[in-house]
Amino acid sequence: MGDARRYHALSSPFRMKRGGELHGACVAYETWGTLAAAGDNAILILTGLSPSAHAASNDEDPTPGWWQEMIGPGKAFDTNRWFVVCVNSLGSDKGSTCPASIDPASGQPYRLTFPELSLEDVANAAHEVVVAGLGIERLACLVGCSMGGMSALAFMLLHPGTVRTHISVDTAPQAQPFAIAIRSLQREAIRLDPHWNGGNYDDEAWPEHGMSIARKLGVITYRSAMEWNGRFARIRLDAEQREENEPFGFEFQVESYLEGHARRFNRRFDPNSYLYLSRASDWFDMAEHGEGDVMRGLARIHVQRALVIGVSTDILFPLEQQETIARGLEAAGAAVEFVALDSPQGHDAFLVDIASYSQAIGGFLATL
Amino acid sequence: MGDARRYHALSSPFRMKRGGELHGACVAYETWGTLAAAGDNAILILTGLSPSAHAASNDEDPTPGWWQEMIGPGKAFDTNRWFVVCVNSLGSDKGSTCPASIDPASGQPYRLTFPELSLEDVANAAHEVVVAGLGIERLACLVGCSMGGMSALAFMLLHPGTVRTHISVDTAPQAQPFAIAIRSLQREAIRLDPHWNGGNYDDEAWPEHGMSIARKLGVITYRSAMEWNGRFARIRLDAEQREENEPFGFEFQVESYLEGHARRFNRRFDPNSYLYLSRASDWFDMAEHGEGDVMRGLARIHVQRALVIGVSTDILFPLEQQETIARGLEAAGAAVEFVALDSPQGHDAFLVDIASYSQAIGGFLATL
Repeated sequence: MGDARRYHALSSPFRMKRGGELHGACVAYETWGTLAAAGDNAILILTGLSPSAHAASNDEDPTPGWWQEMIGPGKAFDTNRWFVVCVNSLGSDKGSTCPASIDPASGQPYRLTFPELSLEDVANAAHEVVVAGLGIERLACLVGCSMGGMSALAFMLLHPGTVRTHISVDTAPQAQPFAIAIRSLQREAIRLDPHWNGGNYDDEAWPEHGMSIARKLGVITYRSAMEWNGRFARIRLDAEQREENEPFGFEFQVESYLEGHARRFNRRFDPNSYLYLSRASDWFDMAEHGEGDVMRGLARIHVQRALVIGVSTDILFPLEQQETIARGLEAAGAAVEFVALDSPQGHDAFLVDIASYSQAIGGFLATL
Repeated sequence: MGDARRYHALSSPFRMKRGGELHGACVAYETWGTLAAAGDNAILILTGLSPSAHAASNDEDPTPGWWQEMIGPGKAFDTNRWFVVCVNSLGSDKGSTCPASIDPASGQPYRLTFPELSLEDVANAAHEVVVAGLGIERLACLVGCSMGGMSALAFMLLHPGTVRTHISVDTAPQAQPFAIAIRSLQREAIRLDPHWNGGNYDDEAWPEHGMSIARKLGVITYRSAMEWNGRFARIRLDAEQREENEPFGFEFQVESYLEGHARRFNRRFDPNSYLYLSRASDWFDMAEHGEGDVMRGLARIHVQRALVIGVSTDILFPLEQQETIARGLEAAGAAVEFVALDSPQGHDAFLVDIASYSQAIGGFLATL
């Protein structure tokens, strides 16, 4: 399996919003398509909490990416026309500097000595990739999905003039208490796992239980009850799929589905990095950039056009939050298209209901 | 603090639906008001997973009950007219025989040797309290809240002719996959706690972490995002409320709120009993009583009149499930009143939005 990641060395020291700085840090990214000589066909995608920069297959890495059906020749992100960049968030362990990275000052992993991470830092790091790394002065479009949508708002706010148009996908202008409660409980499950050990786990003692609970709770809130009624109903596991001697072991298909998600996630994501990115999501609040008012914060973002997409079944980032983004960007002068989808898949619809998202995003990009 | 509980000795052996039997088991209950000589003014309330039989204060126990504002002279359950009984579910540790009880055969606590518990067993035990214990041949009204609503459906199905009217509160005719997923994760958090120890915990080593996560996840799903936006927004804890040296410690009021709920619950509810009742909820399915069809199962329930109440913000027992109950009971011949409330408090609205529930329930009972 190849590796298509490129690495951009961040300015050093790289100063963090909440204090502290990183030395010799880098950010991983991948690209698809060709940057035009005029540099005017670049699209940057900022991801949710867990995905890597590998949004789609490419020559160096033919494995499918997390948005495989959306990116490529003739697809919504048509790489015949667009130069698409996907950045791995600063603080994520998919190639970017993160709490699992070696601190050059100590020669040891940062772990909890990693400075406090905010989505503003994620945005600033991505901005360096685009401008300093790729020499792009202005993005044709900045796309942000889920947590990446919040990072995108920070990007546009902190770097005025670098974004022409914006696509906001299933995200929020601030973390609200339900989402905070869910993420706080995910973090607590990890923190309470004795193997987390204040961040000092290793391959022998890894907080698998905590990560498993965190991931399952994530998946529960990423999908929707409606989808599961159709998909799992009350279907039981076959006898051979059940753990015979496990008291209160799994019995229903939905339980096995969650277990599968947890197993695929566990040991593939650094628990400390998860904690940092999760907390950064809780901290994000456009009101902080608008004297306590979300709309005033959004009013400081200036793009020509925006497409804002949300899903009625999303319980983590409810549709009202995308409406707020749409209204805020519009009030700030952008021409905004707001698309409210009825996809049954909840927050994750952008990864599943490719038809609807392709139509909305492909349609928007075709008019640029 | 007094104790108003009475205890009814169940038939011995008490045979359980899924096999196994209990010897010398009992069920705790409390009563308010006076049973009429004709025995025709009795209302039985079946509770959710965690409440005790102490639904309201009375002479022996003046502490407020879990439905304090609903039960008493002049209240929705007007004890000047009605004789109100609240039964503690079989398997709950609030006085009824449960996994923490001593197994007379061994002289040791049952723990996981307690037979598999179903809500049909809970219903049968409650039926014995009413008929054998209190000599009531027919209930004027059977009320079930949350899990107790499922127990009530089982009660009416298994004991035809013993219920004249029914009030169904925030419940479901079967467990659906979202609710199963939540409860499965709650059970897993307890099972993964090393102190659970296969059910063999004691006061020294108690699965506090698992119970805390389970309770917080419960509270998150019992309330609604909408309520919390208004109640907590992004309000921070005061500096002195924060745990200074705790990495990733609580910062927002909503986190402290959940922690308070968890602390009040922990060590006050037996973890094994929680597991048994939680699984019983997952198992409940009226379709099993209707050749695989919920409506056909409901068609086997015959009451004269029913009031079915649900809340649009309930994510654990969504409103569609109460609609199904209403339609099913109506198809079976009952005169059904269906009340869909817009209370912002989610599943727990029946404990909080007393005005709306008083109006609906008090109004219904006044016409009997």
